[in-house]
Amino acid sequence: MEGIGLGYLGAGLGAGLAVIGAGLGIGNIAASAAEGTARQPEATSDIRTTMIIAAALIEGVALFGEVICVLLALK
Amino acid sequence: MEGIGLGYLGAGLGAGLAVIGAGLGIGNIAASAAEGTARQPEATSDIRTTMIIAAALIEGVALFGEVICVLLALK
Amino acid sequence: MEGIGLGYLGAGLGAGLAVIGAGLGIGNIAASAAEGTARQPEATSDIRTTMIIAAALIEGVALFGEVICVLLALK
Amino acid sequence: MEGIGLGYLGAGLGAGLAVIGAGLGIGNIAASAAEGTARQPEATSDIRTTMIIAAALIEGVALFGEVICVLLALK
Amino acid sequence: MEGIGLGYLGAGLGAGLAVIGAGLGIGNIAASAAEGTARQPEATSDIRTTMIIAAALIEGVALFGEVICVLLALK
Amino acid sequence: MEGIGLGYLGAGLGAGLAVIGAGLGIGNIAASAAEGTARQPEATSDIRTTMIIAAALIEGVALFGEVICVLLALK
Amino acid sequence: MEGIGLGYLGAGLGAGLAVIGAGLGIGNIAASAAEGTARQPEATSDIRTTMIIAAALIEGVALFGEVICVLLALK
Amino acid sequence: MEGIGLGYLGAGLGAGLAVIGAGLGIGNIAASAAEGTARQPEATSDIRTTMIIAAALIEGVALFGEVICVLLALK
Amino acid sequence: MEGIGLGYLGAGLGAGLAVIGAGLGIGNIAASAAEGTARQPEATSDIRTTMIIAAALIEGVALFGEVICVLLALK
Amino acid sequence: MEGIGLGYLGAGLGAGLAVIGAGLGIGNIAASAAEGTARQPEATSDIRTTMIIAAALIEGVALFGEVICVLLALK
Amino acid sequence: MEGIGLGYLGAGLGAGLAVIGAGLGIGNIAASAAEGTARQPEATSDIRTTMIIAAALIEGVALFGEVICVLLALK
Amino acid sequence: MEGIGLGYLGAGLGAGLAVIGAGLGIGNIAASAAEGTARQPEATSDIRTTMIIAAALIEGVALFGEVICVLLALK
Amino acid sequence: MEGIGLGYLGAGLGAGLAVIGAGLGIGNIAASAAEGTARQPEATSDIRTTMIIAAALIEGVALFGEVICVLLALK
Amino acid sequence: MEGIGLGYLGAGLGAGLAVIGAGLGIGNIAASAAEGTARQPEATSDIRTTMIIAAALIEGVALFGEVICVLLALK
Repeated sequence: MEGIGLGYLGAGLGAGLAVIGAGLGIGNIAASAAEGTARQPEATSDIRTTMIIAAALIEGVALFGEVICVLLALK
Repeated sequence: MEGIGLGYLGAGLGAGLAVIGAGLGIGNIAASAAEGTARQPEATSDIRTTMIIAAALIEGVALFGEVICVLLALK
Repeated sequence: MEGIGLGYLGAGLGAGLAVIGAGLGIGNIAASAAEGTARQPEATSDIRTTMIIAAALIEGVALFGEVICVLLALK
Repeated sequence: MEGIGLGYLGAGLGAGLAVIGAGLGIGNIAASAAEGTARQPEATSDIRTTMIIAAALIEGVALFGEVICVLLALK
Repeated sequence: MEGIGLGYLGAGLGAGLAVIGAGLGIGNIAASAAEGTARQPEATSDIRTTMIIAAALIEGVALFGEVICVLLALK
Repeated sequence: MEGIGLGYLGAGLGAGLAVIGAGLGIGNIAASAAEGTARQPEATSDIRTTMIIAAALIEGVALFGEVICVLLALK
Repeated sequence: MEGIGLGYLGAGLGAGLAVIGAGLGIGNIAASAAEGTARQPEATSDIRTTMIIAAALIEGVALFGEVICVLLALK
Repeated sequence: MEGIGLGYLGAGLGAGLAVIGAGLGIGNIAASAAEGTARQPEATSDIRTTMIIAAALIEGVALFGEVICVLLALK
Repeated sequence: MEGIGLGYLGAGLGAGLAVIGAGLGIGNIAASAAEGTARQPEATSDIRTTMIIAAALIEGVALFGEVICVLLALK
Repeated sequence: MEGIGLGYLGAGLGAGLAVIGAGLGIGNIAASAAEGTARQPEATSDIRTTMIIAAALIEGVALFGEVICVLLALK
Repeated sequence: MEGIGLGYLGAGLGAGLAVIGAGLGIGNIAASAAEGTARQPEATSDIRTTMIIAAALIEGVALFGEVICVLLALK
Repeated sequence: MEGIGLGYLGAGLGAGLAVIGAGLGIGNIAASAAEGTARQPEATSDIRTTMIIAAALIEGVALFGEVICVLLALK
Repeated sequence: MEGIGLGYLGAGLGAGLAVIGAGLGIGNIAASAAEGTARQPEATSDIRTTMIIAAALIEGVALFGEVICVLLALK
Repeated sequence: MEGIGLGYLGAGLGAGLAVIGAGLGIGNIAASAAEGTARQPEATSDIRTTMIIAAALIEGVALFGEVICVLLALK
């Protein structure tokens, strides 16, 4: 029972850390995108495309991490 | 009983860390959006769209993480 | 009894971390909003709308986290 | 008895962390508000309104967190 | 006896963390207030009012936290 | 059983840390790319190529790390 | 005896953390006050009043925290 | 069994830390490369060569580290 | 004996942390004072008075903390 | 068996920390090199030589560290 | 014997932390003093006096802390 | 056997920390050297000499530290 | 024997932390001194005197700390 | 045997921390020296003398710390 408990602990902490990672990453990108849009409004679509490509890469890793945590939480 | 307890601990810590992640991420985006709006008021809708797309991505991961923590807390 | 105790510990720490997350996030947004208002007073309502949308997203996650902690604290 | 002790520990740490969160958040907002007032004195009331809305959101989460800690401390 | 001891430990750490939170928050506000006063001496009273409102909010949470720690220390 | 539990804990924490790493890295790159696009719109494709090469390198290490965590989580 | 020992540990750590909090807070305020005085010497008294009000608020919380630690150290 | 478990824990944490290292390093390089490309588009190939040499050095150490973690995870 | 030992540990750590607090605080003040003196030599005495008032407040808390640590170390 | 397990834990953590060290170091150098190349394209070869000398020094220490971790992982 | 050992541990850590505190504090002051001297060579003596007053305050707390650690180390 | 295991743990962590130290130090120096070369190409040899002297000092300490870790790893 | 071992651990950690303190402090001073010398070459001797006074104060505390660690290491 | 093992752990960690200290300190000095040389090439020898005096002070403390760690590692 103790072993499963450590897995539960890992699931909770990992889920939290993954949100921190996604928040730092996507937040950083979108902050620059918003600033860039404000400085150069006619480049909005280019900037937004760049943002979405990169955010998707981070989102992918983050959801991968969350799925691992779900696996652990449902043991 | 000890094992479930570790899961409870993970639920609490994970819920807190997920809020930190969401706070850092959405906070960072919206801060830049507010600055951008102040600098270029006519680009407000473009900036706000960018902000909401990115915030939704972070919010999604954060709620995913919170749901994992609820799963652990209700064991 | 030890297991419940770990849940109590998680409730306390999680409640504190959630406040830190909300504080960092909403604080960051509102700081930029205040600066933006000072620089461009006529854009106040746009900026305040942006701030409230984003703050609500963070507040939602934070209250979700606090509710998890209450669940743990009342076990 | 050990279990209640962990709850007491969580109450103390959580109370402290909640103050840190409130301090960082409200402090950040009010610092920008004070700077904004110094730069644009005639926008004082707008800035102060923005500050109070956001500070209230943080204060709410912080008091929620403190109440959880009181619950734990009085067990 | 061990359980009470953990409560004492939490009281000590929580008291210290609460001082850090109050110090960071009020210190940040007052630092900006002092700079603002130096830059715009005639706005001193407006700035000081803003500072005192926000400092009171932080002070309230900090004293709340300290009271929880006293409760734990006197167990 | 205790040994496997430590592996589960490592899987959860590692998955979370890997997301933080990917978020910091790709977020940092894409933020600069978005700023660069805003400053020099005609260099968008060059910047995006640079971004994708580097993001792929980080993504590779991150997925490698996640796979190790899956291996541990499925033990 | 172990329980009292944890209280002693909390007293020592809490006393140290409280000094860090007071140092960060008052140091931050006074640093800005010194800079403000150098930039605007004729506003010295206004700045110093602002500084002393805020420093007193921090000092109060810090001494409160130290008293809690004395209570724990004399158990 | 406990011993192998510590190895699993090391594998998970090490895999995560290695991703953080690679993310910080390659992210930092590529961010500067993207900025440099935006400022001096005709130097793109020189900058990209510099970036790839350095990224390869970091990638090498990171994959070395991941291989060590695989070795530990497959024990 | 174990209990007293924890008190000794707290005394050592607390003494170190108190020095960090005093160092950060007084160092920050005096750094600004030195810069202010260099920028405005004729305001030296005003700046130095401000510095000494604030440094005394920090010094007081720091010595209070050290005395608590001496109390613990001499148990 | 417990002793070897601690060695495995050290191997995993050490491998990860070494990657962080190499990433911070080489990343920092190459970021400046890329910026320098963008600012002064004709100094590219000088800058790249400087970068490779320093990166080799860090790479040497990092590989030394990784070899120690391999030694521990293969115990 | 275990109790004395914890005191030894506290002595070592406290001595190290006290050096960090003194280094941060005095280093910060003297760095500003050196910059101030470079900017305003004729104010050297005023700046140096300010530096020595503040450094003495930090040095005093640091030596106090080291003496506590000696007390613990010689138990 | 437990005792040797702690030595192995120390060897792994120490090797990793030493790489971080060398990476931060040499990376910082070389980054400034690369910037300096870009700003003043004709001072390249002077800057590179300065860099190599200082890097050698750090490299010496780092290799000393790695040798201690090898000693521990081969116990 | 366990007690002496904790003393050895404290000696090692304390020696390392003391080096960090000395490195941060003296490094900070000397960095400013080098910059000051570059900006105002004719003030070199004044700056160097300031640097040596402050570095000696830090060096004194650092050697004090190292001596405590030697005392512990030779127990 | 456990006691000696803690000494080995301290030796490894201390060696790593000492390298971090030396790296931060000497790296900081030499980075400023390289920048200073680039800005004022004719002051190279003065700057280098300043750098070597300060680096020697740090190197001395660092080697002192490493020797303590060797003492512990050879127990």
